[in-house]
Amino acid sequence: MARLVDTSDYLIAPDPNRSRLTHCIVGHDENGAATEIAVVEERPLTIFLNSQEIVTAMTIGDYPEYLALGFLKNQGMLHADDDIAAVEFDEELETVIVRTARQTDYEDKLRKKTRTSGCAIGTVFGDIMEGLEGVSLPNLTVKTSDLYILANTINRTPSLYLEAGAIHGTVLCQDARPLVYMEDVGRHNAVDKIAGWMLSEDVSPEDKILYTTGRLTSEMVIKTAMMGIPALVSRSGFTAWGIEIAQQVDLTLIGRMRGQRFVCLAGEHRLDRDADPKTVSDEPKAASRKAAR
Amino acid sequence: MARLVDTSDYLIAPDPNRSRLTHCIVGHDENGAATEIAVVEERPLTIFLNSQEIVTAMTIGDYPEYLALGFLKNQGMLHADDDIAAVEFDEELETVIVRTARQTDYEDKLRKKTRTSGCAIGTVFGDIMEGLEGVSLPNLTVKTSDLYILANTINRTPSLYLEAGAIHGTVLCQDARPLVYMEDVGRHNAVDKIAGWMLSEDVSPEDKILYTTGRLTSEMVIKTAMMGIPALVSRSGFTAWGIEIAQQVDLTLIGRMRGQRFVCLAGEHRLDRDADPKTVSDEPKAASRKAAR
Repeated sequence: MARLVDTSDYLIAPDPNRSRLTHCIVGHDENGAATEIAVVEERPLTIFLNSQEIVTAMTIGDYPEYLALGFLKNQGMLHADDDIAAVEFDEELETVIVRTARQTDYEDKLRKKTRTSGCAIGTVFGDIMEGLEGVSLPNLTVKTSDLYILANTINRTPSLYLEAGAIHGTVLCQDARPLVYMEDVGRHNAVDKIAGWMLSEDVSPEDKILYTTGRLTSEMVIKTAMMGIPALVSRSGFTAWGIEIAQQVDLTLIGRMRGQRFVCLAGEHRLDRDADPKTVSDEPKAASRKAAR
Repeated sequence: MARLVDTSDYLIAPDPNRSRLTHCIVGHDENGAATEIAVVEERPLTIFLNSQEIVTAMTIGDYPEYLALGFLKNQGMLHADDDIAAVEFDEELETVIVRTARQTDYEDKLRKKTRTSGCAIGTVFGDIMEGLEGVSLPNLTVKTSDLYILANTINRTPSLYLEAGAIHGTVLCQDARPLVYMEDVGRHNAVDKIAGWMLSEDVSPEDKILYTTGRLTSEMVIKTAMMGIPALVSRSGFTAWGIEIAQQVDLTLIGRMRGQRFVCLAGEHRLDRDADPKTVSDEPKAASRKAAR
């Protein structure tokens, strides 16, 4: 499958040659021969909301500001009416501080709950499920012809994955055009970076489609719904709870999209099946994403 | 590739027919035809250490006691001299409480640190890196002939993966024999269940090999080292930091093991290259794990 040469249609495309995202190490193959391999970086980034330390994420390290903003947004810690006063990345300290004009009520919540529970993970999770209750996803016609073009274009786009493997990609798309392609060691980070970019650039979600290389788990579905995006597409499989939540919030969920094949698991009503699958060529073996799991 | 019929060599093999781990849902394929698909479950499990709520994990739901024990052990929250007084699983409340004879010092630490930092994730992470400083992994001869047999046997073992996809597997092995094969939606949970089983059954780690279908990230390497297992093998790729930690603690790290191919990234000195790769048949296409990412 020929790699895409011109990526100028993207607003942000992966930059596999960017330094500090990969480096070469020497291993030994099955014959004992030394072999040079490009591997992706993975470094800690601690995210603060004002004076509150929230989480330390493991990330490849690009777009730390988008990652921090998107993480806080997708966790329901930033609200639509929150004014972002500053986003400060300190490369040496490996921290990002997101400052809001007023103290967020999340800080109060966290302080209160941690007194009794010690760790916020369960709490955060509960808050997210609460946040989903008000979610109503917009109507959008999703053409299957667009989906086929998107999958083909994305798979041929030069990326850290094609360079080094062991990484996930998430792509924000509109119609048949991929707009922003983010990658990270964790699929959740890649989605959060997209959410952060959308927040920064004030991009509306209602005519967008999110494409991911990762599995459709509950967290992926929740994040997509929290972002207000009505359709989520993946090459990979899905979990029962991911599907259940998608059905509950009426998100169009499409999995196992490879070559001409896909399966729609929720929100079928948005699909316009305008393409004849038989006219779509099956995916060549070389296109299968082998290393990112 | 023929499925393994006799799994009696395993101490614990996957039980793909066990109820509550998968269920059937109906989706629509690329032609709009209704299609029945088995999907894995994903449910929350909240883990307590004595009176302290620690984390809510998303899990398929089997072996909750092992998951809780292994998680706490691998996070450095249970020490070698801790007496486990009880492990109480409440299916309805979706909780596991691990009770120790004496109050663990971790509870104090957590209480102290949460007062200033609000959330324990960063703290926990710091504690793990501290915990690694004392780790010295045992010598063991790892025969490549054993590795080839292990990979072949594991890939042919009936599993939730082969049934439903979108799931990770981790297998505790000794020589050419896979002993305990755990699966979960998160690869970390699968490893934690193995750690919990080892703790419960008082199984020594020094002659064991850990095989995983997931990527070799820093967390996978750290968990394996915390468990005292000297060799970690994966079908998938790896991250730079995963390799760096493996080199630091002298863990034998093998990635991209498919058919006759593999690459050794650290701890080469434990390898006995007794098999000729040319005599090993390449992996048929059907064996590639497509859906779990």
